[in-house]
Amino acid sequence: MTDQSVSRFGHVELADFPTDLRERITPIAEKSGFVPNVFRAMARRPAELRAFLDYHDALMEPTTDDEGTEIGLTRAERELVVVATSGANHCTYCVVAHGAILRIRTKDPTIADRVASNPYGAELSGRERAIVDLALRISLESARFGDADLDAARRAGLSDEEIWDVGAITALFGLSNRIAHLTALQPNAEFYAMGRQPRA
Amino acid sequence: MTDQSVSRFGHVELADFPTDLRERITPIAEKSGFVPNVFRAMARRPAELRAFLDYHDALMEPTTDDEGTEIGLTRAERELVVVATSGANHCTYCVVAHGAILRIRTKDPTIADRVASNPYGAELSGRERAIVDLALRISLESARFGDADLDAARRAGLSDEEIWDVGAITALFGLSNRIAHLTALQPNAEFYAMGRQPRA
Amino acid sequence: MTDQSVSRFGHVELADFPTDLRERITPIAEKSGFVPNVFRAMARRPAELRAFLDYHDALMEPTTDDEGTEIGLTRAERELVVVATSGANHCTYCVVAHGAILRIRTKDPTIADRVASNPYGAELSGRERAIVDLALRISLESARFGDADLDAARRAGLSDEEIWDVGAITALFGLSNRIAHLTALQPNAEFYAMGRQPRA
Amino acid sequence: MTDQSVSRFGHVELADFPTDLRERITPIAEKSGFVPNVFRAMARRPAELRAFLDYHDALMEPTTDDEGTEIGLTRAERELVVVATSGANHCTYCVVAHGAILRIRTKDPTIADRVASNPYGAELSGRERAIVDLALRISLESARFGDADLDAARRAGLSDEEIWDVGAITALFGLSNRIAHLTALQPNAEFYAMGRQPRA
Amino acid sequence: MTDQSVSRFGHVELADFPTDLRERITPIAEKSGFVPNVFRAMARRPAELRAFLDYHDALMEPTTDDEGTEIGLTRAERELVVVATSGANHCTYCVVAHGAILRIRTKDPTIADRVASNPYGAELSGRERAIVDLALRISLESARFGDADLDAARRAGLSDEEIWDVGAITALFGLSNRIAHLTALQPNAEFYAMGRQPRA
Amino acid sequence: MTDQSVSRFGHVELADFPTDLRERITPIAEKSGFVPNVFRAMARRPAELRAFLDYHDALMEPTTDDEGTEIGLTRAERELVVVATSGANHCTYCVVAHGAILRIRTKDPTIADRVASNPYGAELSGRERAIVDLALRISLESARFGDADLDAARRAGLSDEEIWDVGAITALFGLSNRIAHLTALQPNAEFYAMGRQPRA
Repeated sequence: MTDQSVSRFGHVELADFPTDLRERITPIAEKSGFVPNVFRAMARRPAELRAFLDYHDALMEPTTDDEGTEIGLTRAERELVVVATSGANHCTYCVVAHGAILRIRTKDPTIADRVASNPYGAELSGRERAIVDLALRISLESARFGDADLDAARRAGLSDEEIWDVGAITALFGLSNRIAHLTALQPNAEFYAMGRQPRA
Repeated sequence: MTDQSVSRFGHVELADFPTDLRERITPIAEKSGFVPNVFRAMARRPAELRAFLDYHDALMEPTTDDEGTEIGLTRAERELVVVATSGANHCTYCVVAHGAILRIRTKDPTIADRVASNPYGAELSGRERAIVDLALRISLESARFGDADLDAARRAGLSDEEIWDVGAITALFGLSNRIAHLTALQPNAEFYAMGRQPRA
Repeated sequence: MTDQSVSRFGHVELADFPTDLRERITPIAEKSGFVPNVFRAMARRPAELRAFLDYHDALMEPTTDDEGTEIGLTRAERELVVVATSGANHCTYCVVAHGAILRIRTKDPTIADRVASNPYGAELSGRERAIVDLALRISLESARFGDADLDAARRAGLSDEEIWDVGAITALFGLSNRIAHLTALQPNAEFYAMGRQPRA
Repeated sequence: MTDQSVSRFGHVELADFPTDLRERITPIAEKSGFVPNVFRAMARRPAELRAFLDYHDALMEPTTDDEGTEIGLTRAERELVVVATSGANHCTYCVVAHGAILRIRTKDPTIADRVASNPYGAELSGRERAIVDLALRISLESARFGDADLDAARRAGLSDEEIWDVGAITALFGLSNRIAHLTALQPNAEFYAMGRQPRA
Repeated sequence: MTDQSVSRFGHVELADFPTDLRERITPIAEKSGFVPNVFRAMARRPAELRAFLDYHDALMEPTTDDEGTEIGLTRAERELVVVATSGANHCTYCVVAHGAILRIRTKDPTIADRVASNPYGAELSGRERAIVDLALRISLESARFGDADLDAARRAGLSDEEIWDVGAITALFGLSNRIAHLTALQPNAEFYAMGRQPRA
Repeated sequence: MTDQSVSRFGHVELADFPTDLRERITPIAEKSGFVPNVFRAMARRPAELRAFLDYHDALMEPTTDDEGTEIGLTRAERELVVVATSGANHCTYCVVAHGAILRIRTKDPTIADRVASNPYGAELSGRERAIVDLALRISLESARFGDADLDAARRAGLSDEEIWDVGAITALFGLSNRIAHLTALQPNAEFYAMGRQPRA
């Protein structure tokens, strides 16, 4: 019988990953202290995992301008999109794993639980609220996305490139949330408590 | 301007509660190490707070039989109903505060986040799943509650008194969730990290 | 087999109530000419019935100022909240019983049926519409309750105490509606025709 | 300014109807003691009113077999479909007007309020429940209507002609409900209290 | 066993229609080159088919003023209402058949697919968008139809007669969509490709 | 002002693509006779387009066994998932473009319109229905995906690898649908009529 402790379709241990994927995930695992289960579950399909990682890296790393300065959405704002989307989609894996990253990026031990449990009403800055509203619209009723949404985002100071980033991250984690539900993906136990102590 | 750090309608400090309520909440505050904000926010309306506490105590304490043995839903199962209901209703205060209590009661550091983020699909024992399904039906579409729901609950081993308990706790925290949203109730910071270390 | 003419979990006759509850309900029964079934069904759980009555009385009686003058929401407006909430929640018992009370309080034989069948669009005064809109928001999507809702209510002239009252009555009858569905509570036959003749 | 006491688009008095429509509605008005507002509102568009009446008469009169015996859905069952559909669609005019007719047809003073307020859960006979379930499916999610719905209806004893009747009445009053909302159609005051006394 | 190639309840061939209906449908069939299946399916109930055709003709033909000039909604705009309504209701028959007519009326080979697949967001002129928004409101949440909807339609230049037309066509095709789902009505194969080549 | 004929955020012509992407898209463009707009719109973000293409190719090409025989979902079945998902998500671009491909793959000129307009009820073979039901569940309520869904799929003969494929294609096109709505992506005119003539 398939081991379902990671995914209902089984999983692959890091040592058994194709070389390129093992080399790519190893530094993440070393930094975290464990191999996030999403990689172990998706490694059953290496080509899909590679494409997912490429899409992820294209969107979750901040953009830099010609001089290498980070511009556009911050790392924390990108994680905020993930947590809001995953909360709205009821994806436990992504809420727990990216909630941890959001706490670490923001050094705020409460924001992830507040956004994941109620993305519709969580108290946020004006810019953060505009980002989350955009993510919710694209997650839940994208067919109605239109000029009113764009105008609201622009009034909150978001550039078109930032709007694209929010929308595309929402779309990518909509994919990720659905893969997690498809596979009954289990969060690693370590994620739950990460980042819960405010840093000095 | 009203202080909105606890509720958008302000709050009352424990020292200023009517005597009976102060005497009732003080032991809870001493045990927790802080005064849960729900009491500070609702104390603006002492009669409502008294009724809420009475309803709460009537439902959240286990029933005992003639010999004093606890019967029916356990304390942990009662908290499970609260977390599932509050997750479905997107109530951050109740998810965070009762999530902490659920972790403590179950000694399981992950169950609260799993149930709050996805009450529809969280992996649970058969009895727990039946309890949560009952809570979701009553929370979200009580007009359709009927014989099929009762039969499913009974097949999972729930007695009629337990079914009443699940339904009534769901109804009471449906009230509580709505009061929290009405008042923009903020969870005390202490709740977020409580019970996250498995007990020895 | 349990007598299900009042509730699917049976009921208690007034003569068999605990003394305090019998003394509390008797005047209501004498005034109405019958014992409303909600009391007979909930009397199986006296502590819950007491708490419900206390919460009810704290919210459904008008507030009075220091000189004893009634202020805030009128009795009729409080019943309007109940009928709108119960209509939105499809609770037959509360629609029928509180519809009768609303007809009596307003001396309007049509308002209850109009609000219960279509709380979203019933023709009402501006203040009544603001009250009903608040009740619908808290009933149906309280996680989204926010500044826009508060502003609309305030523009219609509602004070913060009145907004709390509307929200709390909505929350209490959300509880009551769910208990009615849980117990398959049957309206007393007498309620259906009460208050249908305009008073002279 | 248009008189909006009947409809937001005004109305026509019976005396001013085209002759054929006046002759058709007069007996109904004489029997009722008043001209139902739906006719006064729709008479602004005589061709539409004629078609509506023809469709109505084709569906609301019982079918007769070769010997003139009524077969298929009874008059009361046809009204039950109308009240369930109109309740689900929140159409006050149709709930109030056809609720009156349903009370008269069934001699049951409570069925209309029970079905209109909660068509999903109202206690009904097995055959009535199957009829109402069919009406709700066609009203609210007809795109999903399929073999499972047909099988359930047939198991409850409905013939294919009866299933067509239920579906077509549901569709016709879905039209009627939408016209009522479009025109803000007001029920005649007389309807509210009709049929509320059980007949001897 | 019933032939289900047209409808799950069978159908009638044109030659077997009652004379008046055969004479009425024959010119349509000759112009199209085939008998649209809706007529063959509904002919099992001639009185209903007659009423449907009368209602249809009262609404789908343009209004003319005293001098015979067409006024109000154009033929194309009336078909736009049908396609938007049928798209929102997921009615394949009406999307396919009236999509063909809309392409022919507008000489635009893409508008039908764009509106049917996403009536909420399809790019349209301001007047067309107002028409479609009205149709969607009446189709999907008519109980909430009110002054805000009327004002938006009037601001887009729609007269009250045009608003009635849009609402009534929406209501009629809401009926038609439900009959199509009830009967599992199959589109004639010819409709799919009609009007897909832009006319010179 | 940005040219919005392809996307609201502008687009890139094939000649201006990075070399690897130009070489990858050119054969597709040559085979189709035009450059599908999705590539022109996404080419503003080459890294995202590369990842999307990689994910697409990993899922839309049939799996082959050790001897090179195609196994698992057919190409047509994969497109069926795309059309059902995109219909449920109201994505015009994907309905029109992949509807064309589905018609070509199945040689059935009606299946795409039938599935896109009503994925919930379109008449399909048992295996196709199971595939579409899986896609709808993952698209619309993935948090509820569970053993009942898996069992239904397996009873219809789907292997676990096929279930993964259906779920992952659904997730990928959920992403694609959201990107299309974000960018107001316009289908190329050529797609609308492709594959509408049955092949000999």
